[in-house]
Amino acid sequence: MENQPRRYGVILYDGFQLIDVCGPLDVLNSLSARVPGISLSLIAEDTSPKSTIPKEWPANMGMSPFSTSQTLQPTHDFKTAPELDVLIVPGGMGSFDPVRTGKPNPAVVDPIVEFVRDRYPKLKYLLTVCTGSGIVSQTGLLDGKRATLFKGAWEVIPKWRPQVHWQPRARWTEEGNIWTSSGVSSGIDLMFAFVKHIHGDEIAQDISVWMEYSRQLNPDDDPFGITVAEERE
Amino acid sequence: MENQPRRYGVILYDGFQLIDVCGPLDVLNSLSARVPGISLSLIAEDTSPKSTIPKEWPANMGMSPFSTSQTLQPTHDFKTAPELDVLIVPGGMGSFDPVRTGKPNPAVVDPIVEFVRDRYPKLKYLLTVCTGSGIVSQTGLLDGKRATLFKGAWEVIPKWRPQVHWQPRARWTEEGNIWTSSGVSSGIDLMFAFVKHIHGDEIAQDISVWMEYSRQLNPDDDPFGITVAEERE
Repeated sequence: MENQPRRYGVILYDGFQLIDVCGPLDVLNSLSARVPGISLSLIAEDTSPKSTIPKEWPANMGMSPFSTSQTLQPTHDFKTAPELDVLIVPGGMGSFDPVRTGKPNPAVVDPIVEFVRDRYPKLKYLLTVCTGSGIVSQTGLLDGKRATLFKGAWEVIPKWRPQVHWQPRARWTEEGNIWTSSGVSSGIDLMFAFVKHIHGDEIAQDISVWMEYSRQLNPDDDPFGITVAEERE
Repeated sequence: MENQPRRYGVILYDGFQLIDVCGPLDVLNSLSARVPGISLSLIAEDTSPKSTIPKEWPANMGMSPFSTSQTLQPTHDFKTAPELDVLIVPGGMGSFDPVRTGKPNPAVVDPIVEFVRDRYPKLKYLLTVCTGSGIVSQTGLLDGKRATLFKGAWEVIPKWRPQVHWQPRARWTEEGNIWTSSGVSSGIDLMFAFVKHIHGDEIAQDISVWMEYSRQLNPDDDPFGITVAEERE
């Protein structure tokens, strides 16, 4: 019990995907009513509200911009964030921001990548949702490991870091203390699996019934997975 | 096309349930990238940030308070809210606030109930998630209609307004232009069904694949439904 992770943090940035963040966090809220001492920090580069609309809409994702949006308020910036046991990195259209991907200037390091790399040694677990694994891949922490991602970015993100064993067919992956989920809503299944891993199936099941959510139990059962053959078409 | 609802509003209050709001809204965000002219207002009694923690934790729901929370920022209050086509009323622990339920002073009307009653005649659709149907039931608009709710409140909410035909086993209900969903995550299925109803199945399916969400298609298939026999035990 003493070693159970209790101090959660989630990273926010402009262009985070709403359910990537709010799906796992509502599971966490429900967990916090059942397990004492759970805390959460919402962490960003600065503490201005972060929007679901990215600063620059990615041109290579084949989709028009959203016209509706929401914001979440960070509680800490990267300098003031407290010690964490679990860090969650969500995906979203903002993960394609040039600072994260194009690296127009190699001297400019994505502050999220820097924060994750800096904090990882003291974390108990690092979780990613959707394209969050693309951000984390650039730390090098996923090199040689199995990871998955938003399948709509299969043509794009694996090229950012080919050293990762990108899985085209996985609802989520667990490799040591780094867990990655597939696109958008899959983060809810990852979070339920994580709660089960840490606190046992009884609590996970209790929360899923309370949330009236039919959780997926098998990480390899990916209804939205693609085969490499399909991908090459 | 001209008559398709485009102007969405969602009600916020302290103690809204995170996925009740953010599940349907992420479907809406994704819709807004595919259908032009979709707008969203986040509407509350006042425009201070609204928290997932209620002002008073309900004593009759058999659960300890959450220790983690998030806030959403309203864009409008009840006076400044624009004309709307679709109004979404989420549930959450705040729906058990005494002003909504106990009616300690009959002269005090819940401002949410007042707003819904006032706006309904000009709405094209009214949607509720989770215990949101309990709030809306107090307008009288559900009298004689089928409605469902968060099954964890089956012993409590139907008593607030017995004139409603409360359904113990329904993922969601559709009665004319008032649709109600079951607990928490069921609002995502309701929203996908609503998108299908308005914009057709191709768009609904496209969004569900993009969000990697296995939507439930049958409103009567309720894995968390209860039988009246169970309820009487």
